[in-house]
Amino acid sequence: MSCSEFNLIEKYFSQQTITRDDVVVGIGDDAAVMQLASNEQLVVSTDTMVEGVHFLQTTHPYDIGYKLMAVNLSDLAAMGAQPRWVSLALTLPESDEEWLQQFSTGLFDLAAQHSVQLIGGDTTQGPLTLSLTLQGTVNSNQYLSRHGAQIGDAIFVSGKLGDAGFALQQLFSKHEVDEDCLVRLNRPIPRVALGQSLLGIATAAIDISDGLLADLGHLLIVSDLGASLQLESLPISTSVKSTTVDDDWSLPLTAGDDYELCFTVPEAEILRIEHQYCTITRIGTVVAKQGIDCFTSTGQLLPQQQAGFEHFSQNVDKERIS
Amino acid sequence: MSCSEFNLIEKYFSQQTITRDDVVVGIGDDAAVMQLASNEQLVVSTDTMVEGVHFLQTTHPYDIGYKLMAVNLSDLAAMGAQPRWVSLALTLPESDEEWLQQFSTGLFDLAAQHSVQLIGGDTTQGPLTLSLTLQGTVNSNQYLSRHGAQIGDAIFVSGKLGDAGFALQQLFSKHEVDEDCLVRLNRPIPRVALGQSLLGIATAAIDISDGLLADLGHLLIVSDLGASLQLESLPISTSVKSTTVDDDWSLPLTAGDDYELCFTVPEAEILRIEHQYCTITRIGTVVAKQGIDCFTSTGQLLPQQQAGFEHFSQNVDKERIS
Repeated sequence: MSCSEFNLIEKYFSQQTITRDDVVVGIGDDAAVMQLASNEQLVVSTDTMVEGVHFLQTTHPYDIGYKLMAVNLSDLAAMGAQPRWVSLALTLPESDEEWLQQFSTGLFDLAAQHSVQLIGGDTTQGPLTLSLTLQGTVNSNQYLSRHGAQIGDAIFVSGKLGDAGFALQQLFSKHEVDEDCLVRLNRPIPRVALGQSLLGIATAAIDISDGLLADLGHLLIVSDLGASLQLESLPISTSVKSTTVDDDWSLPLTAGDDYELCFTVPEAEILRIEHQYCTITRIGTVVAKQGIDCFTSTGQLLPQQQAGFEHFSQNVDKERIS
Repeated sequence: MSCSEFNLIEKYFSQQTITRDDVVVGIGDDAAVMQLASNEQLVVSTDTMVEGVHFLQTTHPYDIGYKLMAVNLSDLAAMGAQPRWVSLALTLPESDEEWLQQFSTGLFDLAAQHSVQLIGGDTTQGPLTLSLTLQGTVNSNQYLSRHGAQIGDAIFVSGKLGDAGFALQQLFSKHEVDEDCLVRLNRPIPRVALGQSLLGIATAAIDISDGLLADLGHLLIVSDLGASLQLESLPISTSVKSTTVDDDWSLPLTAGDDYELCFTVPEAEILRIEHQYCTITRIGTVVAKQGIDCFTSTGQLLPQQQAGFEHFSQNVDKERIS
């Protein structure tokens, strides 16, 4: 951490309640020092959020802090890792104390739920940009990855799909916003315990940040495989259900920001999945033919949906955040 | 790493030549997985660079990538750590392929010199903001920190002070820029080997990013100590020397961006310092009285200099970058 930002960081980021025994040197030196056990491997994920791209100007700073933590935790959940330490790179247009107070409270509230300690970071002046690097651990070689799906594996997702996208649609169209969906947009629940419970059971896993088709597609393409999905099986809320008339499944298939896990499990292992963490739903099967085929309740093949949001893509709807 | 940026990262950031044996899962999954030895501790540092704050709009993207890597390496150098893995959070206004090519080349050129491997990151669209999180290791509890300076310790700095600030002054005043100083501004040399050689010898260490007085001040204040400095001892180039007429020592004392190490050593240990890595110079002594007193060659006490650059400070010269 650069010295010059010490006071600012000191004031708001010293308010965390988590003090881990494995932090040898925390905030306040040139770098932090941490202790791993001899049978552990380090797991690292970085995620950035930019105003207007990942959150709206009207988003409450508590929710910005909460979500920044959530999206990083979600990446570690998809690895089956135990989150432990986090570094924050915070770029702010000005030193807004109320903003910092609320932002850091949101960040720390979710971090504390997972016993994650802030170990350092960097505060700079500039356009609002927030980047977290989260460090966790797994027991040696006991991690989930995107690689490993097999033909015939069942495809599962956690929670429900499309709620965050529904809230965003309502925000953009100036409708009154469904409160439950807004909470799902602003405070996604990272499936950390579920991810860890899938170690040794799931053959592959990914978190859904850019939409089911896009992220499942990433998982399948690394194994040169495809999938067959049953649209009626998709776990969706009543709100999202109301948008699927005329077989418009775009919200649950392509809306981002759900931060649910998508994972593949051999048929023989399905009974071993523990269900106490959250709802999980089988939505389809891994097949040899590349691409993702989506079937309606009448057995009709849905025309290829637009894949999830791509930064810099010419197809990006400029009003969309993800 | 979010999936949506995969292609962009894949194209430019797959060009690195370093492939470390201790990277179990690298770029392309939700997180990276790395192996530490059982006697090692993890060392983590994050630094952000913002256009207009840390570099000029005219700075070549190769130099931006190089310097981003250098400032993080400098933090690990100040801990005496061995750099190993790095994550990049890259926010770009648009997908500029030439910029990405040059930026990544600069980043990788310096990373390769230190066997550092890029293990992941995140690319988002927004105002140009670059943040690196560098991971390294030390043998258990064998690290340098800012804490530990003792009364009577000799104070040393590596290299020369003020060259980067001199180049910046020339750039702002539209003078022809001294080429040697410009290289020092754009491509600082992180003192990684020196830092490691000081383990067990230096009582405290810090890297000079915000100016000697500011950073030495941080090192002293954590031990409630002060320093007495001999201005004539400061290691400065002929260019910087030319600015010190009338006892104006502001460049070597307060200009940032040098990324040299400042460290304290007990008198009895001075002969143990190895000199093969770079020039080191004794500039003063740790004293009990708090504050930093600077003495001229005639023994006069220099009036208190302005401390180094502070983000968000009302005293900031708006044209200055640091």
